[in-house]
Amino acid sequence: MAKKSVVEPVLSAEQLSKEFKEYSIAEFFKRNRQMLGYTGKLRSLTTVVHEFVCNSLDACEDNGVLPELLVEIKELANGHFWIAVEDNGTGIPKKNVGQAFGKLLAGTKFMSRKQKRGQQGLGGSYCVLFSQITTGKETHVKTGIGDHKIYDCDISIDVNKNEPVMHNEAETSGKFKGTRVEIELAEVEYNRSTYGAFEYLRRTALANPHTQITLIEPNQEITVFPRATTKIPARPKESLPHPLGLTTSDLMDMVGKSDARKISSMLQNEFSRVSADKVKELSIMCPGVDFERAPKYLQWAEAEKIVLAVHKVKWIAPETDSIIPIGKDQLEKSLKNLLQPEDLRIVERPPKVFRGGIPFSVEAAIAYGGKAGASGSQSTENGVIMGKGEGLRFANRVPLLFDAGADAITEAIKTIDWARYDLKNWEEMPVTMFVNFTSVFVPYTGAGKLAIAQEEEIVAEIRYALMECARGVATFIHNLKRAEEQEQRRTLFFRYIGEISQALSEITGKEQLVLETKLRKIAEKRTAIAEASDEKELEELEKLEKAAQKEMKDSGEEDE
Amino acid sequence: MAKKSVVEPVLSAEQLSKEFKEYSIAEFFKRNRQMLGYTGKLRSLTTVVHEFVCNSLDACEDNGVLPELLVEIKELANGHFWIAVEDNGTGIPKKNVGQAFGKLLAGTKFMSRKQKRGQQGLGGSYCVLFSQITTGKETHVKTGIGDHKIYDCDISIDVNKNEPVMHNEAETSGKFKGTRVEIELAEVEYNRSTYGAFEYLRRTALANPHTQITLIEPNQEITVFPRATTKIPARPKESLPHPLGLTTSDLMDMVGKSDARKISSMLQNEFSRVSADKVKELSIMCPGVDFERAPKYLQWAEAEKIVLAVHKVKWIAPETDSIIPIGKDQLEKSLKNLLQPEDLRIVERPPKVFRGGIPFSVEAAIAYGGKAGASGSQSTENGVIMGKGEGLRFANRVPLLFDAGADAITEAIKTIDWARYDLKNWEEMPVTMFVNFTSVFVPYTGAGKLAIAQEEEIVAEIRYALMECARGVATFIHNLKRAEEQEQRRTLFFRYIGEISQALSEITGKEQLVLETKLRKIAEKRTAIAEASDEKELEELEKLEKAAQKEMKDSGEEDE
Repeated sequence: MAKKSVVEPVLSAEQLSKEFKEYSIAEFFKRNRQMLGYTGKLRSLTTVVHEFVCNSLDACEDNGVLPELLVEIKELANGHFWIAVEDNGTGIPKKNVGQAFGKLLAGTKFMSRKQKRGQQGLGGSYCVLFSQITTGKETHVKTGIGDHKIYDCDISIDVNKNEPVMHNEAETSGKFKGTRVEIELAEVEYNRSTYGAFEYLRRTALANPHTQITLIEPNQEITVFPRATTKIPARPKESLPHPLGLTTSDLMDMVGKSDARKISSMLQNEFSRVSADKVKELSIMCPGVDFERAPKYLQWAEAEKIVLAVHKVKWIAPETDSIIPIGKDQLEKSLKNLLQPEDLRIVERPPKVFRGGIPFSVEAAIAYGGKAGASGSQSTENGVIMGKGEGLRFANRVPLLFDAGADAITEAIKTIDWARYDLKNWEEMPVTMFVNFTSVFVPYTGAGKLAIAQEEEIVAEIRYALMECARGVATFIHNLKRAEEQEQRRTLFFRYIGEISQALSEITGKEQLVLETKLRKIAEKRTAIAEASDEKELEELEKLEKAAQKEMKDSGEEDE
Repeated sequence: MAKKSVVEPVLSAEQLSKEFKEYSIAEFFKRNRQMLGYTGKLRSLTTVVHEFVCNSLDACEDNGVLPELLVEIKELANGHFWIAVEDNGTGIPKKNVGQAFGKLLAGTKFMSRKQKRGQQGLGGSYCVLFSQITTGKETHVKTGIGDHKIYDCDISIDVNKNEPVMHNEAETSGKFKGTRVEIELAEVEYNRSTYGAFEYLRRTALANPHTQITLIEPNQEITVFPRATTKIPARPKESLPHPLGLTTSDLMDMVGKSDARKISSMLQNEFSRVSADKVKELSIMCPGVDFERAPKYLQWAEAEKIVLAVHKVKWIAPETDSIIPIGKDQLEKSLKNLLQPEDLRIVERPPKVFRGGIPFSVEAAIAYGGKAGASGSQSTENGVIMGKGEGLRFANRVPLLFDAGADAITEAIKTIDWARYDLKNWEEMPVTMFVNFTSVFVPYTGAGKLAIAQEEEIVAEIRYALMECARGVATFIHNLKRAEEQEQRRTLFFRYIGEISQALSEITGKEQLVLETKLRKIAEKRTAIAEASDEKELEELEKLEKAAQKEMKDSGEEDE
């Protein structure tokens, strides 16, 4: 078999030239599927559902309607899975369907400065490619943009060129507005575990209370995650970049694309918070740089000077109306609806900024009791309900199921001293922690969009939000314990009143009922004393509260 | 400032179409630098050195020479860094220089079935792009392919097109053969920590004992990592794929590209271990599939049948001559040279296969004492030298400095029961663990090439190799402890012989020298007894050995 593995001689220049090849991005990601989150059968299926659901929700938001999603999953006879995702969003113009589903790095989302679920123009097309490389099948797309025409087609990707290939195109008339995708997958698996599509959709419903999702599982079971509110969230505004986030490279990119006639007007019109006065301030700090020239003449060294000057000027903080969090009321409805907790604390922090110029906000909730905590084994121990604590992570309302280890939210949860809030063993308690990070730019650690980078400002905000929730829950848990203990004392006393009074009656010859009434009065008095002694515990609770506030101050929390 | 953030109305189809855009892979990675390992100032500089050094070593191997590398790092007045990497490799043909350095996903390495350091055709070009986006500068390349011409140019990348832009091209005559790259970087940092370029080159030298690397640091200090052997490693052969690694998608790709006239001959010529008999066996198992037709007519469903059949046939294991490990002798020279350890155990495991068809091999070493362990704080405690254990990870001789957490080697180290080998606290001991993974395909967890995926077969092999080393070291440590204890006993005894004999001489009136000689004889006898009693300890050691062997068997280790 020597013919099959030949020792190669030292390479000549010609041979070397012959070995040079170029590859498409589709070829690259075909070989590197793990970079996009396709690393196990279960996770791969969930990732496909995630990509299409994100696209659907973005399309519904663009359409200004209450989202109605249908997700259907079937297991085929050959072990493959078939998934359909349908929405009532904008639909996709016929001429863009190929780009949207048949070309990696194409779409409406890459580098958009608008709060969206998608960011890369990669997710949907990669699903099509994944289907193709695991089953050889095309993906069926049906879409209507509200002009009484329905466009149907099957799409695959020419991997060598990263270009869409369209099959079976058809146009019919009809009322459908929205998009429906049908895809076949192999090397995937479905179940109801934490990492499955069911849990993904449950969490999506939680963070998107205005959405209704219907799931049909492979066993034909139909689950409706019902809408908790009919209030459509405000549509996020497109935001201009804040100068503090600027790098020299960004500035050079902008001058290449700008239509402005002067650098000064470009800075004023294409940035947030840059006034004519501020431009003047900058120009004084950059002698030799002519701000009245056309942007295209700006040199790298000049741009570098401007960026240095930008960091010395005092700026108004970025506008934050590009940030649309879920909102306290909506979140309360959603969490109560889903978890029916005994106690629920929600905190919506005011927007902050990371990397100098990118606004973001954090909202957090801690739910205790009821169905809070990972579903399953609740039990009562020493008056405290035992369960299994869960942490739910979201970025722009998208659930992050995987890669918890490297995440800013996980980091925040890990570094809080939960003992201060009677939540030391929260992982064994019926506790659901909820954190949603909102921003026009989510600093994901990878293209798989699974973990938020541990930027200092972000971790700090998440900690503050969770600690504030925890203070409330601590009070509740404390009262719960106290009430439980009292109840136990009372129960113990009353349990034996009957027997004791009977015994006393036999000994003393007095009426049992009279004796029992007297004993009962004594018992009530005792409880009252017990309640009075609880004053002391209340004082301790206040101390706890103060200690927690101190911790927040120590962590650098400013007064607000 | 309302003009700057406008609430957008519901999107019309026209607006939607206008929002559709396409982006180049260069644009994508420009925004996602963290995916390629550029996530901190120190790490970014090390990554650039790593990319160029890998390319240089591959080029030297292609050139069949002993590598001579020069790495020079300067800090410029403006805080930028300037790096030059020069090698004596093949050089790059003039017409390919643009592709090699100015286009992402181009080069000689993507999907090559040859054991190389590079895999993606991405590393070098991304350095050029990183320089460009942090400094706006071009990268200078000088190269000669041995035809007495030297080609010089400056390269940048047209980010929108992912195409090279060449400046200042010049051709002169001269003898230089090899490549020299000069690059300027901002947003980077240099120091001698574990994650710096110095440590990276030290480890590169360790795993490439035939290489000489000269480093000039920013403070002008010159360090030569000398060559430990002049033996050039065997050149890896290009390997054909083994059928067991085949997916339907791969097979369909192959039929599209194959020049073979029949499916049967394609299978025989383009795969390893596929004989005419085996093709016959397959064809019997795939009724309805015509193996005598041209490959291009093969349908997906037919390919699926063939792949299913492939997994039912018994195959000879893949050829392993495409795998060139460092080798026991070379590794010994290298580790002794660098660490001067008191004990060194090296194990080279025979090649195995992962994912059904990809051959790989693992070599491991454990060095104890001397300079082993992270450089610095060695001390002696109870006869055992205390230090700081270090684990050195390599893939195809390339040091993996980052992302240890997610790595197959880390996983193997974590799951070994070190207490069985007297190495329970190895992290506090003067121990260097060395593991090199060799394969034509390294399953990296990301494009940054920092961690080897935790494939079951790979983790198992690494564990066996390390456990085998550990058994040897355990014996050494045990003897060391025993010798130390004996020595202490002896020392204690002899220390007082003079005084005791003098005192005895005064009391008894006998000659001190006679008494001392007698006492010395007694002392020697005692030590002999101590040695005899060590027999028992030896028995214990044997038990330890047996227990360790049992552990390996339990872990599924086969007899070899």
